[in-house]
Amino acid sequence: MLICCKLSGMTLQIEPSLFPFFKPQGVAIIGVSQNPTKLGFGLARNLLQSGYSGAIHFVNPNGGVLFERPVYPGIVHVPDPVDLAVVLVPAPQVPGVLAECGERGILSVIIASGGFRETGPAGAALEDACLHVAGHYGMRLIGPNCIGLLDTHLPLDTTFLPPPGPPPGDVAFISHSGAICAAVIDWARGQGFGLSRLVSLGNQLDVRETDVLVSVAADPHTRVITLYLEGVSDGRRFVRAATAVAREKPVLALKVGRFASGQRAVASHTGALAGSESAFGAAFRRAGVVRAETSEELFDWARTLAWCPLPKGPNVAILTNAGGPAVTAADALESHGLKLAELQPQTIARLAEFLPAAAAVNNPVDMLAGASPQEFNRALRLLLDDEQVDSVIVIFPPPPLYTAGGVARAIIPTIYAARKPVLAAVLGERMIQEAVEYFRAARVVEYRFPERAAAALAVLWQRAQYLAAIPEKPQRPVNVHPSTAQATLLRVRGLAPGFLPSEVVNELLAAYGIPTPPIALAQTAVAAAELADGMGYPVALKVASADIPHKSDVGGVRLNLFNGAQVQQAFVAIMTQMETAVPQARIEGIYVQRMIPQGQEVIIGAVQDPQFGPLVMFGSGGVEVEGLKDVDFCLAPLARAEAEEMLARTWAGRKLKGFRNIPAADREAVIEAILRLGQLAADFPQLQEIEINPLRVLEQGQGAFAVDARARVG
Amino acid sequence: MLICCKLSGMTLQIEPSLFPFFKPQGVAIIGVSQNPTKLGFGLARNLLQSGYSGAIHFVNPNGGVLFERPVYPGIVHVPDPVDLAVVLVPAPQVPGVLAECGERGILSVIIASGGFRETGPAGAALEDACLHVAGHYGMRLIGPNCIGLLDTHLPLDTTFLPPPGPPPGDVAFISHSGAICAAVIDWARGQGFGLSRLVSLGNQLDVRETDVLVSVAADPHTRVITLYLEGVSDGRRFVRAATAVAREKPVLALKVGRFASGQRAVASHTGALAGSESAFGAAFRRAGVVRAETSEELFDWARTLAWCPLPKGPNVAILTNAGGPAVTAADALESHGLKLAELQPQTIARLAEFLPAAAAVNNPVDMLAGASPQEFNRALRLLLDDEQVDSVIVIFPPPPLYTAGGVARAIIPTIYAARKPVLAAVLGERMIQEAVEYFRAARVVEYRFPERAAAALAVLWQRAQYLAAIPEKPQRPVNVHPSTAQATLLRVRGLAPGFLPSEVVNELLAAYGIPTPPIALAQTAVAAAELADGMGYPVALKVASADIPHKSDVGGVRLNLFNGAQVQQAFVAIMTQMETAVPQARIEGIYVQRMIPQGQEVIIGAVQDPQFGPLVMFGSGGVEVEGLKDVDFCLAPLARAEAEEMLARTWAGRKLKGFRNIPAADREAVIEAILRLGQLAADFPQLQEIEINPLRVLEQGQGAFAVDARARVG
Repeated sequence: MLICCKLSGMTLQIEPSLFPFFKPQGVAIIGVSQNPTKLGFGLARNLLQSGYSGAIHFVNPNGGVLFERPVYPGIVHVPDPVDLAVVLVPAPQVPGVLAECGERGILSVIIASGGFRETGPAGAALEDACLHVAGHYGMRLIGPNCIGLLDTHLPLDTTFLPPPGPPPGDVAFISHSGAICAAVIDWARGQGFGLSRLVSLGNQLDVRETDVLVSVAADPHTRVITLYLEGVSDGRRFVRAATAVAREKPVLALKVGRFASGQRAVASHTGALAGSESAFGAAFRRAGVVRAETSEELFDWARTLAWCPLPKGPNVAILTNAGGPAVTAADALESHGLKLAELQPQTIARLAEFLPAAAAVNNPVDMLAGASPQEFNRALRLLLDDEQVDSVIVIFPPPPLYTAGGVARAIIPTIYAARKPVLAAVLGERMIQEAVEYFRAARVVEYRFPERAAAALAVLWQRAQYLAAIPEKPQRPVNVHPSTAQATLLRVRGLAPGFLPSEVVNELLAAYGIPTPPIALAQTAVAAAELADGMGYPVALKVASADIPHKSDVGGVRLNLFNGAQVQQAFVAIMTQMETAVPQARIEGIYVQRMIPQGQEVIIGAVQDPQFGPLVMFGSGGVEVEGLKDVDFCLAPLARAEAEEMLARTWAGRKLKGFRNIPAADREAVIEAILRLGQLAADFPQLQEIEINPLRVLEQGQGAFAVDARARVG
Repeated sequence: MLICCKLSGMTLQIEPSLFPFFKPQGVAIIGVSQNPTKLGFGLARNLLQSGYSGAIHFVNPNGGVLFERPVYPGIVHVPDPVDLAVVLVPAPQVPGVLAECGERGILSVIIASGGFRETGPAGAALEDACLHVAGHYGMRLIGPNCIGLLDTHLPLDTTFLPPPGPPPGDVAFISHSGAICAAVIDWARGQGFGLSRLVSLGNQLDVRETDVLVSVAADPHTRVITLYLEGVSDGRRFVRAATAVAREKPVLALKVGRFASGQRAVASHTGALAGSESAFGAAFRRAGVVRAETSEELFDWARTLAWCPLPKGPNVAILTNAGGPAVTAADALESHGLKLAELQPQTIARLAEFLPAAAAVNNPVDMLAGASPQEFNRALRLLLDDEQVDSVIVIFPPPPLYTAGGVARAIIPTIYAARKPVLAAVLGERMIQEAVEYFRAARVVEYRFPERAAAALAVLWQRAQYLAAIPEKPQRPVNVHPSTAQATLLRVRGLAPGFLPSEVVNELLAAYGIPTPPIALAQTAVAAAELADGMGYPVALKVASADIPHKSDVGGVRLNLFNGAQVQQAFVAIMTQMETAVPQARIEGIYVQRMIPQGQEVIIGAVQDPQFGPLVMFGSGGVEVEGLKDVDFCLAPLARAEAEEMLARTWAGRKLKGFRNIPAADREAVIEAILRLGQLAADFPQLQEIEINPLRVLEQGQGAFAVDARARVG
């Protein structure tokens, strides 16, 4: 049996071995308890109360009866059908129980027990033992140290969470944190949305976030997938899977542990800036995963994505009985990149026909405090009929003369019939409960604060744009010569790990078609002058030493040398300076390099991220990179459109089109250099860091040159 | 009778004419209605139900009886005592009603009616008429087009909002938006805090936000003041008053209409960046007003500031039964500038004594899902006893084995007795209602999401730091010569408004002690070379023309001229270029200027903000100012500490201490230049814009020079 999930042209294979987790024929709970204060009691209760229609079996060595069902003393005694076991026994007993499951033919097991890796080396050893048993039987494991999973539509509940479980719905939640699951269910209930599936992954001994993401994406009841991630196990695999899923269903992620990553030892600007957060940002962007910054955003946005049609454009109409909150909403819309729609004249005229003279009939449409439910509805219909309007936010505090519920009742049929998204911001809490309940029953998204409605609408528009964009795959740049680069790297393989000599770096860049200024190594002042004569002036001198990463910091660079005499003088000056400044450094000589004309300067770098692999950085270069932080990241290799986006997201990139008296520069050459450096980093993972700083960008058509570059091999 | 409110050393005079608004002897409602669907009915009902203990009078020309009280046909018939009237009659009748109030001796009137300025010119004329009547009688007006005000402690309710009113509490709300008031009351109820006073200001014909801010600050029941501002009427007066108030009671403001301000015509970088938002930011910072970005933040933070003691430091302990949300909270804390406390060894040891082996006893302290209410309390006490801990956030989703209410009950006495702030994040919604109610009753702040608790705690720490800082007043810099600057400006008074000639700008800077490079105007190439010989080389040439604001944009600048021949050649070249590039510009000659050695370059500018007056900008200079947006604003004149903060908030400022191979520069000279330019802008409001770009900052002790500067008079 091989069932596939066809998503966005790609065919994602759902591992058949995972089926019993999501559609078991029979479930055995191993470690049930008759004591209502024990989790083993909760497991049994939840599974029974969930309405699960397959076979339910309880196991405990003590036997007995629970909920009028027999408790079997061992898994071997459990009758057919049974293909999923939930294990809640002390950790040391788990490997043995797994073996019994294997013997009984149960090949899908949720280990709810804690006491494993999270407790130290002894627990980690127990995990190894579990994995060993599982490997022997071809068994799949979720957990350990997890809450289990539930499916509100099957239905199935293998958790021990206190009831009530979540209402059935269309939002799936996949979590590295088990502890948050109870809160998520309660938030869902409180905020009026249901869950389709909830999966707690625990220590991820076997089944991981990507496996579950693909399985859950195939669930027809799930419209939106939310992820609570502490990391990902295999970054590239996650990105591949999430990319396929996100084109079909919105995927929202909250990545936690941002500041916990600590500092790594790095030697380049790119390395210093390319923390795990930049990599996650780039990975989510590549995959089309929407990143929430807070738990609240995660679920605010999930509801909107699940229930609203997508807007065709960024133009929003605001309909309200309250001017102040409408201004707040307009502020929030603009800060999120949406616009206030310019209403058509006939819309304005028709609004003016029935609204009081003091009402504002331009967007935001403020009908004033006395607006009736019928007026709300009439105005909403006019706004929805306006071609200039792509979406509507209806904002109302408790109206002084009518009830909020009355307004909700009046406009729900219109919202329901609309092909444009309509979001409600019902301001208040207790006086507007009736309106909230009407809206929820009709699956109209509603928020208590106007800013949250605006933020959610922005995510909806982002989703629409994402789906409208034609996905572009990274293309291998032409005229890149991996075999040449390979040969270069082989040549220096004998060197200790660390910085590569400049000429080696330039060879690598040349092999990938990134232009560098002519450069040669001189051992004496006279030789330097001769080399310079051959290249043409002006030239620069730079000390050659693998021990000096930041050459200009120690006075190892001299620029603008216009003749042989200056070159000889500078050579001696640098050598003298090095003896004082870095006496321990091994000096290989001094590079002579033709200087490239003035131009805009940018930085392009690449690092190997431990989770997501090659990662390219682009931005404002020079020595102030970390100070200005005008940089952007993208997974490598990258598509041309992604390189364009990096330019659009940075001042360094926007400036390439010219600004004031800064002339336009050769953007094309920059994009080429980004794509080529990305390909180089992707082709050679041993290049731990490679950075061009500056890439000097000449006028249009004149190209861009890697004036200085360095690289480190791992 | 003159009652003063002594705040932070300053004595703010509360206008005695405002007393009747906040403590009336008797209130007349003019325009009551017997029809329960009319606002005039609501006014009468609310005043009666509020429990107001003074005299209550109803007026309507039709007379009759309402709530078993007589309705007087006119204000003249109303018996004593009566010193406050609330008017809700059609707008055209209001001036007449005001005159009747004046005759009756009522000198405080709330005009609740709409139909004034907000409806157009006719309405604006009615406002003028009202003001005229009020002037005649010395009458004070709140409104028109407002909701009125309420005081839950007096008590008094002059609004027509649908009941129930807000519970009594310690948060005051002052609003330019009347429409949001009903929502605020309902939010307060829903979020479990009470209001002390609520004032809706309407069109602010007479009484404005600053008047009410001062009056409300004097209210002993008010602990925190929240403002919903659409603008301020007199920026400097607001700042003065808010500064005095904020040292006594926290003031929180939501400023709406950020994007509505539109674009003004400006000619300098400073002018382009100094929008109304920068001015509000600077004004709030000067005054110590905490700025909220959303309505939700406004009340989240108000509760915390009202109920929590201030932390002594930034070190936070997190106590939880759920690892995931604790990580989320830690992320949020760090992003807000707080730190995870490093627990003392004895705290860790004592926690380990009773927590399970798998629990995390380092901060965040994760007691695991099974933690009992008693364990929560025991751990909380240990954390509060730890000297390294300045505050605690307790985070718990519904616990699987206990109730959230049980946890709340167990820890409330400890929180109550603590001198350190303890905030609760009770995750969920319906299952944790009991806990929420316990917390609210005990005035323990609680949030549904960990990130919101972290943000609120950050505001609390910000408040503690604000109060700990010794307020510093702007000092007039020494050796500034306003009379010299005055004479310079008088000399050019005849010139049309616009850019001042360079030498005039330099004279102004010189008069305020800001060094400029020697400069002189030449009419011929030969004269230019002679002037350069006198100054010493290298020199720069710059075209002199009031018609060319950005000289380098049109090729009007030549740098690095090392001898007379180069100067003569450049002179001719510039003149030729100007004929082509800007044929319509009037050229007054060419400036010869001694060039200043290389150094760091920053921008310092000042503009006159229409609301807040002189505003200074500091940041990264050059031509990319608007692109990099590395700038900060402060009201002028400014204190030294404020100039230091501008440096700290910008990369341009931080870089002055040196970065990598950029040597440290003369920070002192920059601070001096900021203070002096601020004083200049403050002394001469006719200087609409003045900007030094770049201010070149030499090495420490070598000073900073205004290499290029321009100024515009209004």
